[in-house]
Amino acid sequence: MSVTCANTDDLSGLELGYDVPAFPGMAEAEIITPCLVIDLDAFERNIARMRDYLSDHQVRFRAHGKMHKASAIADYQISTGGACGICCQKISEAESFVRNGIEDVLITNQIRGTTRLRRLATLAGTARLLVCVDDPSNVEELSHAVMTAGTRLEVLVEIDCGAGRCGVAPGAPALALARAIDDAPGLSFAGLQAYHGRAQHMRDFSDRRAEIEAAVTQVSETITMLYGAGLSCDIVGGGGTGTYSLEASSGVYNELQCGSYAFMDADYGAIRAADGGGFRDFENALFVLTEVMSHSKPDRAICDAGLKALTLDSGLPKLFEDDLEVLGCSDEHAVIGDPECRLALGDKLRLIPGHCDPTCNLHDWYVGVRDGVVECIWPIDARGKVF
Amino acid sequence: MSVTCANTDDLSGLELGYDVPAFPGMAEAEIITPCLVIDLDAFERNIARMRDYLSDHQVRFRAHGKMHKASAIADYQISTGGACGICCQKISEAESFVRNGIEDVLITNQIRGTTRLRRLATLAGTARLLVCVDDPSNVEELSHAVMTAGTRLEVLVEIDCGAGRCGVAPGAPALALARAIDDAPGLSFAGLQAYHGRAQHMRDFSDRRAEIEAAVTQVSETITMLYGAGLSCDIVGGGGTGTYSLEASSGVYNELQCGSYAFMDADYGAIRAADGGGFRDFENALFVLTEVMSHSKPDRAICDAGLKALTLDSGLPKLFEDDLEVLGCSDEHAVIGDPECRLALGDKLRLIPGHCDPTCNLHDWYVGVRDGVVECIWPIDARGKVF
Repeated sequence: MSVTCANTDDLSGLELGYDVPAFPGMAEAEIITPCLVIDLDAFERNIARMRDYLSDHQVRFRAHGKMHKASAIADYQISTGGACGICCQKISEAESFVRNGIEDVLITNQIRGTTRLRRLATLAGTARLLVCVDDPSNVEELSHAVMTAGTRLEVLVEIDCGAGRCGVAPGAPALALARAIDDAPGLSFAGLQAYHGRAQHMRDFSDRRAEIEAAVTQVSETITMLYGAGLSCDIVGGGGTGTYSLEASSGVYNELQCGSYAFMDADYGAIRAADGGGFRDFENALFVLTEVMSHSKPDRAICDAGLKALTLDSGLPKLFEDDLEVLGCSDEHAVIGDPECRLALGDKLRLIPGHCDPTCNLHDWYVGVRDGVVECIWPIDARGKVF
Repeated sequence: MSVTCANTDDLSGLELGYDVPAFPGMAEAEIITPCLVIDLDAFERNIARMRDYLSDHQVRFRAHGKMHKASAIADYQISTGGACGICCQKISEAESFVRNGIEDVLITNQIRGTTRLRRLATLAGTARLLVCVDDPSNVEELSHAVMTAGTRLEVLVEIDCGAGRCGVAPGAPALALARAIDDAPGLSFAGLQAYHGRAQHMRDFSDRRAEIEAAVTQVSETITMLYGAGLSCDIVGGGGTGTYSLEASSGVYNELQCGSYAFMDADYGAIRAADGGGFRDFENALFVLTEVMSHSKPDRAICDAGLKALTLDSGLPKLFEDDLEVLGCSDEHAVIGDPECRLALGDKLRLIPGHCDPTCNLHDWYVGVRDGVVECIWPIDARGKVF
């Protein structure tokens, strides 16, 4: 299966090194570091595995675009990866995805404030747009915004089933909010947003299972209350890379929102599977390519991937297929322990970032590589869309 | 003293919310969050304090642009803040600064690789450009690059005086490298780069002093060896916000490279001054402005500044002038403990980021605020210049 670069025509005028880290056709060894590299074979296998698994379990898939922030990848997930649409977290992200051709976007977050609401209501006139709420005042604001703009919005009630962040309590508070949406001019009640973020990275499968089982019970009870009040849930959404099999087989969730599965990262690489072994459902497909730029001490190599190339919120990066250890990162450098002085100036290394989402947000381009050759570069066009 | 926006003319065509978080003239309460806000009064006081202190101590100042990554701020530091030029870390950063009018740039880092060297040699034809080396092979590469381009480069020997990253050992290895530079066609030996990064954030002043005293001894001995070999140091560079007074009064360093002093951050806010009290030489001038977007639990407020708005490599952000505590951050949210339920939906808060440099790298704009009104917005034009 081949991946096409949606933006091949747009590369003229870009300067190697200043604007972009690579051009199609270059050898991997020539790529300007540090940059994000996608192993296209591994990426495509990840995409196909999730598609086939969810298809087998007869649940819809709405890939989370907040992970990769690139319309080219969202487009591939929809055209080839079984996704019915995408999720994102911000109105500016949604605008970026819609401008770049994505036509079905769920914002898995609250949108508030005059400017953001106006933009949301406007965007709803150009694509299928869904948004979450966890407060009655927000329902009123959304309704006012779409009535002013002459558009409509589908709205999900976000419930907190253990994450401890946004979301109302399951049960009666969710029902009250769903009723308010159903009553509000210009809004349609579209279902429940029930993502359990805190469960995703729990190391043991049994802990993740216990959390999701509890969530499923809460979601199920809430759905029963909603049905009793004449409200049906088109979408019961949630699920992430760490728990996708649990939501998929729950009989309750009908639309999964996994993001990291496409790339993986060091933190997801550290969770355990159901059999107690490593979680190997998906492969590392995303790397920070870096180069040894200083080796003036015999026992440590300094490479050029620091805090501008990867984030440390989920720990230090790991070397891919190498037992050397990253000892630390500063703004522009990573220090690699190299006791046997195996590395040399100019050596290129693949690092697995600790956490893919915020690491992707640091870069403007993905460099897609196959068989040692750059096949495509994709702009991270929703990068930095933070508002 | 007033700050002018170097880019006021370029704001047409930008969309509020999608492209920019604010426009000049808006009230602070209207700014789209999350975004970086500069308290212009505090910023200007910081700039003036460093200028006056270093002027009094008769050392040059070369502000580190890797901190703010904005040519408008670099320009202000040169025009008003006593800086003779700026520092940065990457050739792409240097290109960005030079393209935006900065004419004297020291890259406090090694530049290697065919493409980067070609760009460096080309850029050296358009501005005063200096670079560091810590390996003899790099001297040859630099010489070849400038001879091919028909330009010249000033080159500093980077010595490691305790940071444990790049840099050769002081003394004989530094002398050998300086001789190689002096002998190399197209290169001029310009001095020593002796920044002690590890010392900057040591909590106790006495620890920082001990580290810098040891560094000063090493630098001084190296300078003596260089003079003995007929090599003089135009630049003896180093110093950061945590140790600037020590290098400035050392009698050895003659060009300081502080960056964070202009903005400060939570980690610098945690170091101690010489008297054991808090380090208050500079004021917090940089904030992540955030808004409470969910308060569905009575004891915690969820605001919209997560890992896309700030980095955690130096710990969680702190609320400015408020004793509430940030309990954690995820990709898009920060959770604030609010036991007395003091915060309400829509409240705007100023967060002090843990570490200013990588936090600034997440954003495309600074919003300059004075007396509650947006006075300017400055593009972070060297953001993401990672290559």
